[in-house]
Amino acid sequence: MNKKLLKKIENNEEIVGILGLGYVGLPLAVTFALKNVNVLGFEKNKTKTDKVNKAENYIGDVADEDLQTVIENKKLSATDDFSRIKECDAVIICVPTPLDKFKKPDMSYIESACREIGRHMRRKTFICLESTTYPTTTENLMMPIIEKESGMVHGEDFWLAFSPERVDPGNKDYKTDNTPKVFGAMTDAGREIGMAIYSKAIQHLYPVSSPRVAEMVKILENTYRLVNISLINEMALLAGKMDINIWEVIDAAKSKPYGFQAFYPGPGIGGHCIPLDPFYLEHIAKNYNFDLTMIHAAGHIDNLMPHRMMIKISSALNRQKKAINGSKILFLGVAYKPDIDDERESPALKIMDEVHKKGGLVMYHDPYISEVRTEEGQRYNNQPLSTISEADCVVITTGHSVFDGKEIAEKASLVVDLRNLISEASEKVYKL
Amino acid sequence: MNKKLLKKIENNEEIVGILGLGYVGLPLAVTFALKNVNVLGFEKNKTKTDKVNKAENYIGDVADEDLQTVIENKKLSATDDFSRIKECDAVIICVPTPLDKFKKPDMSYIESACREIGRHMRRKTFICLESTTYPTTTENLMMPIIEKESGMVHGEDFWLAFSPERVDPGNKDYKTDNTPKVFGAMTDAGREIGMAIYSKAIQHLYPVSSPRVAEMVKILENTYRLVNISLINEMALLAGKMDINIWEVIDAAKSKPYGFQAFYPGPGIGGHCIPLDPFYLEHIAKNYNFDLTMIHAAGHIDNLMPHRMMIKISSALNRQKKAINGSKILFLGVAYKPDIDDERESPALKIMDEVHKKGGLVMYHDPYISEVRTEEGQRYNNQPLSTISEADCVVITTGHSVFDGKEIAEKASLVVDLRNLISEASEKVYKL
Repeated sequence: MNKKLLKKIENNEEIVGILGLGYVGLPLAVTFALKNVNVLGFEKNKTKTDKVNKAENYIGDVADEDLQTVIENKKLSATDDFSRIKECDAVIICVPTPLDKFKKPDMSYIESACREIGRHMRRKTFICLESTTYPTTTENLMMPIIEKESGMVHGEDFWLAFSPERVDPGNKDYKTDNTPKVFGAMTDAGREIGMAIYSKAIQHLYPVSSPRVAEMVKILENTYRLVNISLINEMALLAGKMDINIWEVIDAAKSKPYGFQAFYPGPGIGGHCIPLDPFYLEHIAKNYNFDLTMIHAAGHIDNLMPHRMMIKISSALNRQKKAINGSKILFLGVAYKPDIDDERESPALKIMDEVHKKGGLVMYHDPYISEVRTEEGQRYNNQPLSTISEADCVVITTGHSVFDGKEIAEKASLVVDLRNLISEASEKVYKL
Repeated sequence: MNKKLLKKIENNEEIVGILGLGYVGLPLAVTFALKNVNVLGFEKNKTKTDKVNKAENYIGDVADEDLQTVIENKKLSATDDFSRIKECDAVIICVPTPLDKFKKPDMSYIESACREIGRHMRRKTFICLESTTYPTTTENLMMPIIEKESGMVHGEDFWLAFSPERVDPGNKDYKTDNTPKVFGAMTDAGREIGMAIYSKAIQHLYPVSSPRVAEMVKILENTYRLVNISLINEMALLAGKMDINIWEVIDAAKSKPYGFQAFYPGPGIGGHCIPLDPFYLEHIAKNYNFDLTMIHAAGHIDNLMPHRMMIKISSALNRQKKAINGSKILFLGVAYKPDIDDERESPALKIMDEVHKKGGLVMYHDPYISEVRTEEGQRYNNQPLSTISEADCVVITTGHSVFDGKEIAEKASLVVDLRNLISEASEKVYKL
């Protein structure tokens, strides 16, 4: 009976529901709608649905004019009424999968989405999860919930798949439509339907044999990044002790024409993927009595980075016979990577907390972020760039391309450069 | 006074001495000689010097006809008389830097080379080390030995540099002459002379600010490989427990167009670089009271691989109600990587020892290696490929391209495929 659905897709009559209109869901919804697919966006946060319906964009990777186009053309509308899931032929889940304070995956958003879908979906619905999660989630967590809530049977009444989002915020070359997309369904029918739907929006689909393979793909990609960033951070710390410029080392290693990929040190990992994804795998590995030594070691290094960076600031001040306690410390950049306006999991905030605890007078400047709240609950407002000349120590925490290393080095009395913005170390410039 | 030497180099009148005619030294000697540089090769092993002088090639990465050309043209000759170092304007050291049983660097070859050089060199000699070693070796270990033995002063009477070999045995695209070469001298004069000499043989030189930076570059390159191979080995072991084909996962992850480099699992690391280089750094780090967590974790995983692979063989046999004890186990491939004839540090040999200790009747077939001796002192001769049908279990340990996975799967009664030569797992084919 999936022929009827395939026909509908072929005739462009299907409605695609997207659950969650955040940094993954909204770009995906707009990408589908731009290809003339009818999209219904579901979001519990009414502020967001109102904004979408008024074509007010709130996601950096969505072009304002694209959102306007699809709202005007009525290809996309947003709702907080989840009973309208029954209107959809396909439902794509783009909800958060955070970790709790004990680095345990918080699956409540996925579970809740599955209950809503099970409660409201019609027969012959295609369901796909895009949120990063541990392998086996789709098959062992989602399927039972949806079957129970709906009373329907997977493979007959609905089809489940997993296709990891690969959103790289701020990436100018690769957006939702031209980033190859891995896709793993539970059955052949699910694969056929899913490929038919996704291929309207995504240029290159990469089908794999099962959802668990697709789930593992995303974890591998980001575990690779966590491990390599941690490795280079550790080597940077040692290089500092050995009077070796690690940045020069990395640039020279890049001259090897095969078998090397450069990673750069920094104050630690940030964002919503790399600090989280590997720990989903660590979580499920426990269920198999398996220890992931490399992830554990990488997590260990990363956990220590904010403290080590505070020590670096303290050492730099110490050369000028100053202590952190009572000194004005200005952080340049609180975004977790250059040229974006997102401070989630940013290492800068963690170092600010460490410095604050030692009595430092913390300030920050970031052209893209007007205020922040740290994990320890401290609130800070963006300060003007001119604060550089007042600070006892300027710490470069994000390499925004608008920051001018040379100017910073001239105006500041002391700099701790964690992003290699200033080429030469000196009496007043300390590099990671 | 280095102008005289530079002039000599310009006029192609200099003699370059190369200490050590192994897999690094001989290709380098031939590369220089092919560019009409006069090369004198030093080697304590008289069998090797005789072979070189008779143009009998013993290194896979050297073309027979190239060696014949440079011997006939008298651009290269070999000697075991180290007093002839006094004839050389430049001396390049390509000696081994092994680790002892406690993973401590064995610097005796470098020390001995430095003593020979110090004893015999003339004034105004350029000296460069190519052997992989820990950062600071050139400046803190070599310089004092040479100054003491020679009574000369660095920077006035001789110049020291470090330029890591990047030989990748069996690489068809990158040979000595076209692999970019990192080069770090202690002084500007040393840099000028070294660049003038090396640029005759090497197409792309990448100068860095000091020997210690160049030393660190090589360690970073191979530490990156160790860490990533260990990471993927660990993920492969977990994937096996979760019924996930890790090879499919890696291929899918490769569809990500940025920020990912594929590494493949296997029975462990081998060869003369990756299992060794990171531990030089671990050694020197101790001197700075610094623990290299990532290298330590990677080494830990790698140490356990042979044992884990033995367990895999045992589990496969167990499915057929057999034990290792008394079973015939055939290993396909003992070289440490495909299509080469080198079994140094090969994981196959370590697994063979593990299986032998459990009473397994060990055999091997490798078209490129006629006999081996394991670390435990067992000796084995190459067996014909036809042994496959007699073996209780065939273990694919090296992915030589001549091995036909399909044929192996057909003829063997049981296969443990550690190199993804057989695409489908089955009742009688177990994959890593």
